[in-house]
Amino acid sequence: MQASNSFPLNAWYAAAWNQEVSGREILARTVCNRKVVLWRKSDGAAVALADACWHRLLPLSMGRLENDQIICRYHGLAFDATGRCTHIPSVTNISPSACVRAYPVIERHRFVWIWPGDPSLADPTLVPDMHWNDDPEWAGDGDTLSLACDYRLIVDNLMDLTHETFVHATSIGHRAIVAAQPTTTHDDHSVTVTRWMMDIDAPPFWRAQLGRPGNVDRWQIIHFTAPCTIVLDVGVALAGTGAVDGDRTQGVNNRVLNTITPATDETCMYFWSLVRNYRVRDQSLTTQLRNANARIFEEDRIVVEAQQRSISMLPDVPLRNLNIDAGSVWARRNIEMMIERESPPAQASGTHRGAHLASR
Amino acid sequence: MQASNSFPLNAWYAAAWNQEVSGREILARTVCNRKVVLWRKSDGAAVALADACWHRLLPLSMGRLENDQIICRYHGLAFDATGRCTHIPSVTNISPSACVRAYPVIERHRFVWIWPGDPSLADPTLVPDMHWNDDPEWAGDGDTLSLACDYRLIVDNLMDLTHETFVHATSIGHRAIVAAQPTTTHDDHSVTVTRWMMDIDAPPFWRAQLGRPGNVDRWQIIHFTAPCTIVLDVGVALAGTGAVDGDRTQGVNNRVLNTITPATDETCMYFWSLVRNYRVRDQSLTTQLRNANARIFEEDRIVVEAQQRSISMLPDVPLRNLNIDAGSVWARRNIEMMIERESPPAQASGTHRGAHLASR
Amino acid sequence: MQASNSFPLNAWYAAAWNQEVSGREILARTVCNRKVVLWRKSDGAAVALADACWHRLLPLSMGRLENDQIICRYHGLAFDATGRCTHIPSVTNISPSACVRAYPVIERHRFVWIWPGDPSLADPTLVPDMHWNDDPEWAGDGDTLSLACDYRLIVDNLMDLTHETFVHATSIGHRAIVAAQPTTTHDDHSVTVTRWMMDIDAPPFWRAQLGRPGNVDRWQIIHFTAPCTIVLDVGVALAGTGAVDGDRTQGVNNRVLNTITPATDETCMYFWSLVRNYRVRDQSLTTQLRNANARIFEEDRIVVEAQQRSISMLPDVPLRNLNIDAGSVWARRNIEMMIERESPPAQASGTHRGAHLASR
Repeated sequence: MQASNSFPLNAWYAAAWNQEVSGREILARTVCNRKVVLWRKSDGAAVALADACWHRLLPLSMGRLENDQIICRYHGLAFDATGRCTHIPSVTNISPSACVRAYPVIERHRFVWIWPGDPSLADPTLVPDMHWNDDPEWAGDGDTLSLACDYRLIVDNLMDLTHETFVHATSIGHRAIVAAQPTTTHDDHSVTVTRWMMDIDAPPFWRAQLGRPGNVDRWQIIHFTAPCTIVLDVGVALAGTGAVDGDRTQGVNNRVLNTITPATDETCMYFWSLVRNYRVRDQSLTTQLRNANARIFEEDRIVVEAQQRSISMLPDVPLRNLNIDAGSVWARRNIEMMIERESPPAQASGTHRGAHLASR
Repeated sequence: MQASNSFPLNAWYAAAWNQEVSGREILARTVCNRKVVLWRKSDGAAVALADACWHRLLPLSMGRLENDQIICRYHGLAFDATGRCTHIPSVTNISPSACVRAYPVIERHRFVWIWPGDPSLADPTLVPDMHWNDDPEWAGDGDTLSLACDYRLIVDNLMDLTHETFVHATSIGHRAIVAAQPTTTHDDHSVTVTRWMMDIDAPPFWRAQLGRPGNVDRWQIIHFTAPCTIVLDVGVALAGTGAVDGDRTQGVNNRVLNTITPATDETCMYFWSLVRNYRVRDQSLTTQLRNANARIFEEDRIVVEAQQRSISMLPDVPLRNLNIDAGSVWARRNIEMMIERESPPAQASGTHRGAHLASR
Repeated sequence: MQASNSFPLNAWYAAAWNQEVSGREILARTVCNRKVVLWRKSDGAAVALADACWHRLLPLSMGRLENDQIICRYHGLAFDATGRCTHIPSVTNISPSACVRAYPVIERHRFVWIWPGDPSLADPTLVPDMHWNDDPEWAGDGDTLSLACDYRLIVDNLMDLTHETFVHATSIGHRAIVAAQPTTTHDDHSVTVTRWMMDIDAPPFWRAQLGRPGNVDRWQIIHFTAPCTIVLDVGVALAGTGAVDGDRTQGVNNRVLNTITPATDETCMYFWSLVRNYRVRDQSLTTQLRNANARIFEEDRIVVEAQQRSISMLPDVPLRNLNIDAGSVWARRNIEMMIERESPPAQASGTHRGAHLASR
């Protein structure tokens, strides 16, 4: 397992939607360069173990469940939810060293989160806030994209929504996004970018959501929590009805909930959902919005995967930052600070490649 | 050509079934990281040359045969069975250095064996004993699997048949295999693992072969010859009729003949056949057994190729040994001793990776 | 961008046929390990820029044209034909450093040529002479092959046409090619190989072109211009009518125009055309010859791509030269001299691999 300078290990990462870990099924995932096998015990608790048998490294995810244990398909070794080997056929005394790594797991806000770093630091209060995902006041659904890019390219993408004007010209794009200057605030582990577009013509998507004519005040409030969770608070209200001062009653509001889990240094799983606080019983609207958003994200996929290939071809060319990248700059700085905090100082100065990646 | 620490070069390796080198056809194979071209001379003798023209390295296997020579498809150079260039269009005096490497070849027991190492050491008596393959007292057939794994993973697999219980649960697997403790003996170039399962219910495969009801005594005698040939002597006899003491008349006996040729460090060709000393004229049974065995080996393929991917992902994680691995431990030690014997001492201490591979 | 010892940078390389850069289309190409985007301005001039946006490296070729500028698909940055960034949405003062590299471009003889090296050395008089391609006295057409091989393997192939006897045995091959000794002359940047086959039976292709019975004098005059352009002057005339002394009136004459552009170190684009100075208004003949030649080059593809795989497998095995390789030896020497001239002396001694590649 190589150290990587592209992501911290001491963080909660979404490994799966909760419905993906279900019944007696076994799920294999890659999180932060670690192969992980997930399943659910009979009491309903989710389990995450390193996905390689202690004995001969066959992926345990190829095995089967027996009670609350996973049985290796090759030689029948059994491991419990703590990763301890509890049975080896034809062996009486099992060495206590016969175990695989168990990762701390939390289920929250429809996701199964795992902590790939030091288990003693796995503080449940650090799970990113995506409560809208199972808040009865909100409704919606989402999906997962497996992307061939560094997860930080998605962070960049979401921290600067001016790209909507060019990448999503036919759906949510709008020249007004580019015209409106955002404000950016940050602390050591979060960044917020706020953009208000006052008294503008609504783009097609929002016009349909609002269902009323007339100019709108539109907002995009991007909230990043390091290392890789971004909640977009987006919406429109009829122009001049006070949304900017907190009265959103004359408008419609979405949250786009995004958390991007590094699989390897150049691949990631992008979990997203789109939720709303209006027409919450309207499953047709949920389905329509999820599908529309999925199509928009496919436009992003084309861009970020091409960008990754170009970056990989040009290892010595830096990424440049513009004023529109203020959110991304701070987000990446927060990520780097997390990485530095968990690296021994000697290692923090790093290899050339490490330093290089950090500078990206 | 890189040195490799995963296989010795001074050994006979099966390059092909004898019927694969036939008539005027040209066969290309990779043996121990060496590209080899095989064909048969008009006197019937098989030939193996390095598969790259001396001149511009085009594979000779893309050429054609003319009498007992192979003609390069690019510029028409001709090479005889000793690898000497005998004709270059428009060149009168051919340099004696114009030659490609010829590998020592022996045909025996239905295989064409080649010796990739020092030809002066190519002792025909060292060809592994697979005489059952063309012994008129025995009948059967086999096939070849091209596998994306280190050949030693197949050695491991065959040296410990407890895996049958888990990998082949529905066919030859049986809990009794796990329950019976084997005995392991070895010398410097061979290992024997012997397991007797007394007075057990026969698994479906053996029940069908025996064709009689009643409990059986079952044996599995695994005989490894370094570096990569394994003969399984397997069978059942009616319980208590003395098979363990040498009287197998009340039973049925198979030999599973296996020789695994490294193609590259992480790929191999697995040649196997299944022969029996009963109903030897029954071609339907031969076909049925070959097909059944081929299905069983596909179950192994899934396991060993997944294991190889996991091993490659986890270069710093050792393979652990259990008591069931005694045969495999000795077999790998025999292989390592062969490798060490042919390496100059300075090189034997090796690079980190070399040492690492050896330790696997 | 890695330095490479397989090609010089200070040279004109064909990047496209002129008709490939057309209208409002955007073309992406790889030339000498550099990704390049090509398009045509409204005044008809072709443009070549580095194909990665200055900002976040998205390929500009994924963008769109607006007037004479290319607009990045990700954030809308605009670049003019000189590579200067002329517009960044929501940015007022654009740094003069915001630019991408523009490559010198010349259109000549139906090709768009670019100069990947030092622009101050991009002398238009150095464009290789392929004037037959748009000379009204000549007619014909060609195509492009994308090949998985070092471009120098095509140079080798074209500098020694004895391969026709073996690779193209059924079409243009002829034993007489091998029998006739060529003469080779050269200077520092060109090589000429001349072969006359006097009073021979015409091979099928030439018999059809000549349209008359009787033995022929056949010529193959191969003219190489470093680093990668080869003009074949080939034809036949009725035997003894003085073609060898300059009177070709009793014969037919083709030029095969070839220029091979390295894409990467082990891939290339091979641009070729076949032109003739007879029946120049006969488009059916043009099409027939182009298609026939394309089929012949597919026979070469099989050989050179297999040769490249073999060379890559055998990094320590040298390519050998025979007398038939005299043209190729001098051509490669010319290429090496170009590479050495543009390398600082310290670098010219090079790494092991550099030295190794040069020796090939």
